[in-house]
Amino acid sequence: MLGLYFDEIAEGSIVELGSYAFSRDNVLAFARKFDPQPFHVDDEAAARGPFGRLAASGWHTAAAWMKCYVASNHAAEARLATDGKALPEGGPSPGFTNLRWTKPVYPGDTVSYRSVITGKREMATRPKWGIVLSLNEGRNQAGELVFGFEGKVLVARR
Amino acid sequence: MLGLYFDEIAEGSIVELGSYAFSRDNVLAFARKFDPQPFHVDDEAAARGPFGRLAASGWHTAAAWMKCYVASNHAAEARLATDGKALPEGGPSPGFTNLRWTKPVYPGDTVSYRSVITGKREMATRPKWGIVLSLNEGRNQAGELVFGFEGKVLVARR
Repeated sequence: MLGLYFDEIAEGSIVELGSYAFSRDNVLAFARKFDPQPFHVDDEAAARGPFGRLAASGWHTAAAWMKCYVASNHAAEARLATDGKALPEGGPSPGFTNLRWTKPVYPGDTVSYRSVITGKREMATRPKWGIVLSLNEGRNQAGELVFGFEGKVLVARR
Repeated sequence: MLGLYFDEIAEGSIVELGSYAFSRDNVLAFARKFDPQPFHVDDEAAARGPFGRLAASGWHTAAAWMKCYVASNHAAEARLATDGKALPEGGPSPGFTNLRWTKPVYPGDTVSYRSVITGKREMATRPKWGIVLSLNEGRNQAGELVFGFEGKVLVARR
């Protein structure tokens, strides 16, 4: 999506972003660095904790979404490499909302991410840009929703 | 805050969570792993990009908030170690909202984070738990707001 112009993005389209495998190693590595709560870094404490066993940090699940989002946009990277101003000054994202972690993610889980384009808005004040609204989801291998948020990004118009 | 009971948390209180130093090394390491967009990993592309130079991934800024939040709660960790059920089944957080990145964070920046307790709600359906609402902020060394979100966590009642 980062590599598309506003005019190329269809409302209602679903963009499969790929998947990320959570391993014991990457769960522990992320949590030790950024979220060393006992239930993310210590098996024994995790067994007594809210998830019943070791679970990934919610921010790891979020960062993995970003990884998939970027990886699914090789075309975008090529375009950006030659056209760095295809992003608005100040950055592409005014922010996200309704970020939620609906189920724990455990080592061994693979989460598949997708974006559903839920809306597009032209901007009277910034005619070179449009706002794209999306509902972003991550589901584990059992199809259970584990992560979601609503995104809002500025995308260049042709 | 994780180590406090609902009844111990005062509405209106401000919790300083400490700070995180963004270095060239940790900015590149995070971005290469989770957010390898040109303006996060490549100086030349970044110079032509939306931030004018290499900037940290927004998810790095978010993960650093978590790091500070957890680090500021040593007492919490001690309590959780002996009382793992001081967190609700299903996890402590129903989610966050209005996550926003208001200014770029550059290598060399130090971001200080804080939580303002904006509200508390008892839960008729879950009398052992309360909901604590907070406004979370990150500011750079110049005092500029770079990151924020509204949090909502379940906290055990005495």
